[in-house]
Amino acid sequence: VKVSELSASSGVPLSTIKYYLREGLLPPGERSSPNQASYDQGHLDRLDLIRALREVAGLPVDVVRKVVEAVDHPESGVDPIETALMRLPGAGPAARSPEEEAEYERTYQEVLAFARGLEWSTGEYGHGYLAGLAEALVRIRRHLFPDYPIENLEPFARAVWALSEAEFANVPIEGSPVPLAGDDLAEPTRRAIIGTILFEPVLLALRRYANTMRSIRVESGLPVPPASG
Amino acid sequence: VKVSELSASSGVPLSTIKYYLREGLLPPGERSSPNQASYDQGHLDRLDLIRALREVAGLPVDVVRKVVEAVDHPESGVDPIETALMRLPGAGPAARSPEEEAEYERTYQEVLAFARGLEWSTGEYGHGYLAGLAEALVRIRRHLFPDYPIENLEPFARAVWALSEAEFANVPIEGSPVPLAGDDLAEPTRRAIIGTILFEPVLLALRRYANTMRSIRVESGLPVPPASG
Repeated sequence: VKVSELSASSGVPLSTIKYYLREGLLPPGERSSPNQASYDQGHLDRLDLIRALREVAGLPVDVVRKVVEAVDHPESGVDPIETALMRLPGAGPAARSPEEEAEYERTYQEVLAFARGLEWSTGEYGHGYLAGLAEALVRIRRHLFPDYPIENLEPFARAVWALSEAEFANVPIEGSPVPLAGDDLAEPTRRAIIGTILFEPVLLALRRYANTMRSIRVESGLPVPPASG
Repeated sequence: VKVSELSASSGVPLSTIKYYLREGLLPPGERSSPNQASYDQGHLDRLDLIRALREVAGLPVDVVRKVVEAVDHPESGVDPIETALMRLPGAGPAARSPEEEAEYERTYQEVLAFARGLEWSTGEYGHGYLAGLAEALVRIRRHLFPDYPIENLEPFARAVWALSEAEFANVPIEGSPVPLAGDDLAEPTRRAIIGTILFEPVLLALRRYANTMRSIRVESGLPVPPASG
């Protein structure tokens, strides 16, 4: 299709599409004449991904470029999902003093060993997330439990693995009764990034709710249903 | 003790303590002479709470005031923990158009019914968290799964309840080998607020890690351990 039709069917303004083309976020169309190029479903999918990264994830254009480069070059070994998630607004490690750096480095090694001990870990990929986990553990030990043992994270690891099983089973697949917005079947990267961003608040809200309910039940002597129920 | 000793043992500068006294965040000490007042363990605990709210949670002074008022007036029915968590920097609902408002309101009623159906819900308290859950569900349906059924949240509910059981069991109690920073045994509010804030990044990092590991295992045909393992 022509660029004007690409704009109409994607809902992205023509000027924005031209900007994405100039910036290399969107690959050029196939030249059909010196003044005209032709665009296909791949361009539409890419526009959906860019929009989601810009509008839902709130990522700046230069991060979007890194994400689409990772999508286009799987041989680089760069995970596009991790690339996007590690650069969400408000993410990113705090500045550290040299002593803090040493403490963080020690904790990161500890977290690595913990992660490798998990039955479901592959030992590869996802190290950015483990770095975030090390940051969090440093803060826990600094502000709350100085001797917090890393083994106490095992219930968290069990909970996320169970959740991951349920989430993957819930992902609508072809023929499923739950249709997807846009062509998510063709765009697992968009689904993974946007799904992570959209479901994280669900998990946090429910955790806060569960802890509130448990503490009310404990304090007022109400029955506390066991976790399997 | 005198105010100078309070400053020394809490590590909070004298000028800051005086500011907290003026602002009513810290209750006045007991007058021992026209120019001197005496402070006790309660003041120290309160300073620890204020510091945690300011430095770890990043809350502005007016929110800290609301939190300590809720702590001091349990009969008001205001939950100090919810008060703090719902006002974290970056939290808070987005502006909504009238149609969005109607959609949100419908979704909130749906979430309320879902929450009341959970075996462990008390039907009271925590409604701010449920409002956040409704916001998240509206976004999920808008950006990813238009017909996302609320029952798909059941695995999340099961996961957070299991996690809550483990977390409450892990909280160090008197005689436990894990000592606490500060007098957390006397300050369950501080522990709950700061614990929530500090452990949320743990949960999110591990969820991202688990989903990455699962998707690598699925894609490369590696064995996928069952959730109970």
